[in-house]
Amino acid sequence: MRIDDRFFMELALREAWRYQGLTYPNPAVGCALVKEGRLLAVEAHRKAGESHAEVRALLKAYEALIGREAAVDPADADAVHDFLETIPEELFRGVTAYVTLEPCAHHGRTPSCARLLARFPLHRVVIALADPVAGHGGGADTLALAGIEVEFGCCREEAQALLEPFGIWQQRAFVLFKLAQTANGRIGGGYLSGPDALRHVHRLRAAADEMIIGGGTVRADRPTLDCRFSRDPAPNLTIYSRKEDFDRTIPLFDVPDRSVEIRDDLRALLERPGFLLVEGGEGMLRALQERIDWLLLYQTPKLSPHPLSYNVDQKLEYLHTEPLGRDLLIWSRFG
Amino acid sequence: MRIDDRFFMELALREAWRYQGLTYPNPAVGCALVKEGRLLAVEAHRKAGESHAEVRALLKAYEALIGREAAVDPADADAVHDFLETIPEELFRGVTAYVTLEPCAHHGRTPSCARLLARFPLHRVVIALADPVAGHGGGADTLALAGIEVEFGCCREEAQALLEPFGIWQQRAFVLFKLAQTANGRIGGGYLSGPDALRHVHRLRAAADEMIIGGGTVRADRPTLDCRFSRDPAPNLTIYSRKEDFDRTIPLFDVPDRSVEIRDDLRALLERPGFLLVEGGEGMLRALQERIDWLLLYQTPKLSPHPLSYNVDQKLEYLHTEPLGRDLLIWSRFG
Repeated sequence: MRIDDRFFMELALREAWRYQGLTYPNPAVGCALVKEGRLLAVEAHRKAGESHAEVRALLKAYEALIGREAAVDPADADAVHDFLETIPEELFRGVTAYVTLEPCAHHGRTPSCARLLARFPLHRVVIALADPVAGHGGGADTLALAGIEVEFGCCREEAQALLEPFGIWQQRAFVLFKLAQTANGRIGGGYLSGPDALRHVHRLRAAADEMIIGGGTVRADRPTLDCRFSRDPAPNLTIYSRKEDFDRTIPLFDVPDRSVEIRDDLRALLERPGFLLVEGGEGMLRALQERIDWLLLYQTPKLSPHPLSYNVDQKLEYLHTEPLGRDLLIWSRFG
Repeated sequence: MRIDDRFFMELALREAWRYQGLTYPNPAVGCALVKEGRLLAVEAHRKAGESHAEVRALLKAYEALIGREAAVDPADADAVHDFLETIPEELFRGVTAYVTLEPCAHHGRTPSCARLLARFPLHRVVIALADPVAGHGGGADTLALAGIEVEFGCCREEAQALLEPFGIWQQRAFVLFKLAQTANGRIGGGYLSGPDALRHVHRLRAAADEMIIGGGTVRADRPTLDCRFSRDPAPNLTIYSRKEDFDRTIPLFDVPDRSVEIRDDLRALLERPGFLLVEGGEGMLRALQERIDWLLLYQTPKLSPHPLSYNVDQKLEYLHTEPLGRDLLIWSRFG
């Protein structure tokens, strides 16, 4: 194993992937801080409105260097910023920061990360990818003006994959198709995923603008489609179906505070910028095949003789895989 | 991400998994070396007769500390041992070693790792698992006698999974069933795996004592079953079949310097200590279902409408997953 810039950037990328989709409408971003070879922190942005990756990493690194926890909530961006403005600059002398995306230069819902980083006598900031949003760049300039060495391009391709949903959902709907399956690709036979995977999909449902589900799945599974495992509000729901005659005792119709629409045309929904989470089986996969951006598989640890699978001819590209409880999470691009 | 003993041990485990099976008859072992928080090296044992993980890691750490490569072949255990006996002991003062298995105390095909480690004023040796081989222990005692702090049990469960094949193949055959499939569990339609996955399976074939293949697969696929992608000698082959009337122009019969046997009873083979790599489809999976230890999936990045899959009812436990070129490698336990 080579211990070099790529090694540290890959740690930052891996941490960021844990929050892919969950940061919507923000991008998933990771940050690692290293002082003279010592890894101080690897953190990620977790949720829009909360601290950015760099801010969480600086706080964690501070705690690692002084050897105790700071009395501040790491998620509270303003509080952590304020706190980090007060700590001795010298603490971070010689630190190299690895960030998967150029630190933000603008003060949006949270203060600017580039200005915060520039406060410290860092040795180097290694950036995988420049900020792609028009008018949002300039973070690297802020750092360079403060005398910090800035380097672009380490793990650029991996960072582009991580950032792809963010690039898409600003232009049009980012369509993520979610499937839970056995290790031999069977999708029938009741609940397949373990509790960690269920909690994860419920968090994704809560993050997305809207859930789309096929009418056939609604009739066959009689699902609830809420976010009870993550204790989040239920997502708005679109049922893709030509017929409207659903049995209204199906639990999904009985979830409070969410809209359910039945549509036979998804075009308007797909053109609008946003994040759509699609669940269903072969029918839904085929219906949206040309418009699915990514596939998210929750692969459960068993082989099943259940006959229900899905027949689709589609190239994929694996982007990231990680264990999630007893299951595997496999992110891939339709391509 | 927590940066603690588990973090460094997991790096050692991950590196060791890259050589799972390939180290046969030795165990897969990984080692990470850390000096005052600075990660110096993460290395693994790669092949029986070559340097152990600790030896490779010490050499890599030496190179990291002095900033240039040493003029010694890292694979050559005796040469690296001799070299490491000559370097200044002080270089490794304060280093913590993370090893997935207790360093060997005995001089086998290679000199003792425990004695080599004990030469240096290490701060601590963190060991996931004690040496399970009767008469092989004592590595920790050697270290403790030299005044080095020794700690057992970090990531014990993960290390037990890594070491499981080694424990089995000393008693009876370790049966690894290999399958190449699409992301939706289809196994038909010609070559599925990419070049990296093919090279990996050929290296596994070369490491195993014997390959077993189902008669049906031989007739349907007319395979060669050699190790041309890794340029290793071809494995001995057992075809599991009741009938002996194979078309002798099938390429596997024409590979030089390997035996091919046709058997309708595998019991003798399965009782003998060793490492058996089984390839085939549903028939072979069902025939050996009670005797398969682990399943190795090479999951290729596509969804396929090909009808060939496998209907088996079997619980699994995922042990390790990693990308291998464009494919995914998924190690799991039958359980």
